[in-house]
Amino acid sequence: MDYRMYDLIEKKKHNVTLTEDEILWMITEYTAGRIPDYQMSAMTMAIWFNGMTDEETTWLTMAMAKSGEMLDLSSIPGTKLDKHSTGGIGDKTTLIVTPILAALKVPVAKMSGRGLGFTGGTVDKLESIPGLRSDFSEEEFLRIVREVGFIDAAQTKELAPADKLLYALRDVTATVDSLPLIASSIMSKKLASGADRIVLDVKCGSGAFMQDPKSARELAGQMIRIGELAGRKVVAVISDMNEPLGHAVGNTVEVLEAMEVLRGKGEERLRELCLTIAVEMLQLSDQARSSREEAVEAVEETVRSGAAYEKFLEYVRAVGGDADYIRNAVEHVSGGEIPESPVETEQPVPVLSEKEGYLAACNNAEVGMTSVMLGAGREKKGDSIDMEAGILILKKLGDYVKKGETLAVLYTKKPEVLPAAKARLLAAYNISDEKPGTGPVILDILR
Amino acid sequence: MDYRMYDLIEKKKHNVTLTEDEILWMITEYTAGRIPDYQMSAMTMAIWFNGMTDEETTWLTMAMAKSGEMLDLSSIPGTKLDKHSTGGIGDKTTLIVTPILAALKVPVAKMSGRGLGFTGGTVDKLESIPGLRSDFSEEEFLRIVREVGFIDAAQTKELAPADKLLYALRDVTATVDSLPLIASSIMSKKLASGADRIVLDVKCGSGAFMQDPKSARELAGQMIRIGELAGRKVVAVISDMNEPLGHAVGNTVEVLEAMEVLRGKGEERLRELCLTIAVEMLQLSDQARSSREEAVEAVEETVRSGAAYEKFLEYVRAVGGDADYIRNAVEHVSGGEIPESPVETEQPVPVLSEKEGYLAACNNAEVGMTSVMLGAGREKKGDSIDMEAGILILKKLGDYVKKGETLAVLYTKKPEVLPAAKARLLAAYNISDEKPGTGPVILDILR
Repeated sequence: MDYRMYDLIEKKKHNVTLTEDEILWMITEYTAGRIPDYQMSAMTMAIWFNGMTDEETTWLTMAMAKSGEMLDLSSIPGTKLDKHSTGGIGDKTTLIVTPILAALKVPVAKMSGRGLGFTGGTVDKLESIPGLRSDFSEEEFLRIVREVGFIDAAQTKELAPADKLLYALRDVTATVDSLPLIASSIMSKKLASGADRIVLDVKCGSGAFMQDPKSARELAGQMIRIGELAGRKVVAVISDMNEPLGHAVGNTVEVLEAMEVLRGKGEERLRELCLTIAVEMLQLSDQARSSREEAVEAVEETVRSGAAYEKFLEYVRAVGGDADYIRNAVEHVSGGEIPESPVETEQPVPVLSEKEGYLAACNNAEVGMTSVMLGAGREKKGDSIDMEAGILILKKLGDYVKKGETLAVLYTKKPEVLPAAKARLLAAYNISDEKPGTGPVILDILR
Repeated sequence: MDYRMYDLIEKKKHNVTLTEDEILWMITEYTAGRIPDYQMSAMTMAIWFNGMTDEETTWLTMAMAKSGEMLDLSSIPGTKLDKHSTGGIGDKTTLIVTPILAALKVPVAKMSGRGLGFTGGTVDKLESIPGLRSDFSEEEFLRIVREVGFIDAAQTKELAPADKLLYALRDVTATVDSLPLIASSIMSKKLASGADRIVLDVKCGSGAFMQDPKSARELAGQMIRIGELAGRKVVAVISDMNEPLGHAVGNTVEVLEAMEVLRGKGEERLRELCLTIAVEMLQLSDQARSSREEAVEAVEETVRSGAAYEKFLEYVRAVGGDADYIRNAVEHVSGGEIPESPVETEQPVPVLSEKEGYLAACNNAEVGMTSVMLGAGREKKGDSIDMEAGILILKKLGDYVKKGETLAVLYTKKPEVLPAAKARLLAAYNISDEKPGTGPVILDILR
């Protein structure tokens, strides 16, 4: 069937529901370069105003998923699990959750983007391990999941190319913040990645795309409904992102903090979130336990026994990484909650509190931007990342801090940015005389 | 001041008023090709949804007016008048009104577009007169107004180029039908054309852009407010466009019908509209009469005395046209209300009514499309027009018609289209047993 893009814009403008055929045609033609950007941006703006029904959103998701390669995971036995985080500051959950699941014989075939803004993505963080590869052929990808039990790989080039094009257009036309467009963008890549069941970690707070619980719940609900209509079971964990997750923000420092958690230590909220996501994934899998308590116990046992940590090292070796680097770095760590930096080339620079009181609020996006200033993230596509740059946040919201006490430690190869970075980090925190109420890290679980 | 287009889209999306500076920057940069179409179309769609304040609309109008040449009419003595019609089927009012005003010593410096869709524009219609030119240098343009008293010329190439670019973009992104964008598009060209006072003929009905009196009044009000804020006095006549204006639809046939009116004959509603517009223009001019009655009398006298008709012939000669062609064609006309076609090469083809009853309703846009089929209008830019093609509508809404009676006469050089054209014209009319109520041609005058 052939349509005119003009007519589809006109329909959406007048809030008339588009058909499955129309949406598939639109995405196919746009991906092929036969619909100009100026028509598509008028459409995305009309969608921003009028939204999309659940059916439209699902059709859009499916059309984008089908716009390139769809990964076929059928050569991996059993139900395949995937996870996705909507992104935040200091989010190293994938590094912790995927080896736990693999240790429980739940195959996880995960593709992650490289990061843009704030720190690197999961793939960037992993590549701070010497020798470790993240780009694989489809054959290698499937073999590694079969042999090791999980993978955290870079996205295959041709996965959901329509989403890539559309996202780039939305990014310059102020139409990123549309619930159906966000949901379909995330879900199209998940559907193209081939997993049967998916746990979403929807972040909520000052360092997340969704700033309040209501909109986080809406996004989660939208993605769950897309999953249902597309025949995939989806569970969404809504988690707090009003301060960095854990203590470490960067690449090397985050990998080391993840190792702490895999070894049964680590910051409490980070640990709680990782174990919750792991339990939800386990309960969606072929290895589901008969009760949630048993599932929690099974997940905790993989950590206690060292099985999850060993699984991570097995993965590192399988993809060419230096497992001894990890062992040495972890030994270098003192054993307390906060990993010391193993960084030899960069001297830690303390950030001292200028006031006394309780850490009452954090502008988390500003913490993220501070890490970018230090070199830990990309300002634009193609920028290189300084793996060793980053921040260790020593104090968490609700903690009491004295004047002159160390709030955080910065690492960078760019000493010239330190004055501005220190000021920015200090400005990101609000110190109050009154002890603030601090909420839980898990705000909700939608199944 | 330098802005980012992204930020301006974001503001408009959230219904935050743009500043004069921002709008001027946006239009200047867009005209210079430094803002891509895909950002501008996101902006126009956001405007479609959120509208613009009167101030924003005026700033947009001024920015577009200033985007190219602004005509300087100061070398013509006195207050200069202009008129503009929002367009309809069989609208030959300019051909009648401008010589009437010139005969009253009110200078009218009018630029008209060439037509797209339906019949040609005023300039196309005039060019059906052998030898007549419509493209002038600025010097010629001003000299003709000074010497003859009026001009109906083609638009200077560089008049409001931003409007031209923006309209072309809106046309393919379904954002034409936005009140502030329509109003600013019309008014930008009027302001750039340099007249001091403007009478707008806002058409309303099935053959017009504005289909109902409410939206026609809104558009009129919007343009009057732009005029006020831009320091120009604007009056709007709201007129009926639920059937063709007069009897003739085409180019040659419309010029001849206009001559009928200039010679004191012609169809009643067409005549009433032309005289009303002329009176409004006169009363805005330096020649304003002390009462409306005196103004009406003065206008009617230019017709009765033949002064307006002679003024038209004077204009034709001044711009290289063959005045004898007009005199001969007019003599050829029988003297009744309906001009016979002077067309030698095209045989008139009658369209016979298939039913008996009252003409109760007309899908006027379909009458226009029938005339395009016959060759009287352009389907796309650059198409040539068959000047002699067209329609004479013999019956008006409210008339009684017998089965087999001639409803209309068609002229074309494409006999192959006649069966479809006849069917289309017949289908455009609704014939009823009950005599319909017919409204006045002048719906309102907003001052």
